Amino acid sequence: MTSVDRRPLGVFDSGVGGLTVLRSLRARLPDESIVYLGDTARVPYGTKSAGVVTRYAQLNAAFLTSLDVKLLVVACNTASAVALPALRATLSVPVVGVIEPGARAAAARTRTGVVGVLGTPGTIRSGAYQRALAAERSGLTVHARACPLFVPLAEEGWLTGDVPRLIARSYLEPLLGHGMDTVVLGCTHYPLLRGVLQEVLGADVALVDSGDATAEAVSQVLAAGKAGTAGPGGRTERFYVTDIPDRFVDVSARFLGTPVSDAQQVDLAVG
Amino acid sequence: MTSVDRRPLGVFDSGVGGLTVLRSLRARLPDESIVYLGDTARVPYGTKSAGVVTRYAQLNAAFLTSLDVKLLVVACNTASAVALPALRATLSVPVVGVIEPGARAAAARTRTGVVGVLGTPGTIRSGAYQRALAAERSGLTVHARACPLFVPLAEEGWLTGDVPRLIARSYLEPLLGHGMDTVVLGCTHYPLLRGVLQEVLGADVALVDSGDATAEAVSQVLAAGKAGTAGPGGRTERFYVTDIPDRFVDVSARFLGTPVSDAQQVDLAVG
Repeated sequence: MTSVDRRPLGVFDSGVGGLTVLRSLRARLPDESIVYLGDTARVPYGTKSAGVVTRYAQLNAAFLTSLDVKLLVVACNTASAVALPALRATLSVPVVGVIEPGARAAAARTRTGVVGVLGTPGTIRSGAYQRALAAERSGLTVHARACPLFVPLAEEGWLTGDVPRLIARSYLEPLLGHGMDTVVLGCTHYPLLRGVLQEVLGADVALVDSGDATAEAVSQVLAAGKAGTAGPGGRTERFYVTDIPDRFVDVSARFLGTPVSDAQQVDLAVG
Repeated sequence: MTSVDRRPLGVFDSGVGGLTVLRSLRARLPDESIVYLGDTARVPYGTKSAGVVTRYAQLNAAFLTSLDVKLLVVACNTASAVALPALRATLSVPVVGVIEPGARAAAARTRTGVVGVLGTPGTIRSGAYQRALAAERSGLTVHARACPLFVPLAEEGWLTGDVPRLIARSYLEPLLGHGMDTVVLGCTHYPLLRGVLQEVLGADVALVDSGDATAEAVSQVLAAGKAGTAGPGGRTERFYVTDIPDRFVDVSARFLGTPVSDAQQVDLAVG
């Protein structure tokens, strides 16, 4: 039996993408309060180096722990790929990234043993998914592919039609014809492009959304007693961003399903 | 007659884009030494707010003035659009942005009086080109258009073929058929897409590169005695970046014509 702990879950991402993870957390853990931080002054992380992303991740984590969160969700694949060891070394609360849960779900799902991973250049270059998949199940064949144009496409809301289809084809065609039956959407922006990705990959390929897998992992951490659960009633959500909130609020509904009504700007002054 | 001043010109941009301006400076002012700073830890600026971009611009300017530059070139349209007054208020050296020179060149060029401006969301939203064109010549009709996908396309080197052509068509078709004979490339990345832009706009539309116009403006500031000129011999170039230099060095030749052989990482710690 777990104790009651009404402190919020802390969730950060480089910007709006992590709202797809928040959406999964809402659905899986409907009683838990959430504090979300989008580092919109420094977005994107996916094209930046491991050192710089780790520094930004530490600033984000310090801000969220200052708000007394009981668990930290790194809702950004690039930051999960490069910064988890540094965060776990310095924080006293449990830290859950999106990569291990996504890899676990994909390894459990594939029948052919051939898995695709799509992500930012930073995530793919890190090899984090490749390592996590190998740790989950030996003998998997992994085809990893960096898709740098997908983030700006999702940010701009250019989700259907010839342009995203052509870009997706260009990235994915080298991966086809190798028996791949499962593809990890290894960036929180990519679920928005699910339609065009499914069309290019074919209807029989399963798309694994790391957000859903991460919400399940958070649920297991709470159930294991590593942090208490909130119990019903009194749930809250708060949103913080590092640039002015206008654009974040404007595009939030596309990622979250419902619009964020209010987000507060904070200045993480050292960066 | 101007005095001799062998101190370098300082040039900054959010990343690699300003190298197209540096290329123009090299050609127009072959004796002047240059120190270049690319703020690759915080790129891009074009999708961020005026306040955040101004803060980053001030950090960049402070770093370059610490290296004793005699003149500052803001080789980034977004920073030029929003941060010039703040920079001029605090710096003792002349500050040259890319927008006034680009607007002046376009106003002098157009015969029909109908001018197009392409830029990042930040630049277009600021209205800086629209104001600068109106100040140069009354009665101009200006069609301004934000083209957010052009920067990632140029950064990824995706410069030809169906994808950039389709994206360019999508952005530019609303601008066609209004008698526009001159278009300002209001972002330092866009000269890389010149081929596809010329194809979509038509061969009779003049494309104005703000980099060339800015180099001419810098030359005039030096000739006017606001800073001395270097005179022949002893020219140097130094490159600094705020993220690790690998990617900057890798893609530099695409923007500069010749590769940057060495760039040094600096930590602009307050951001």
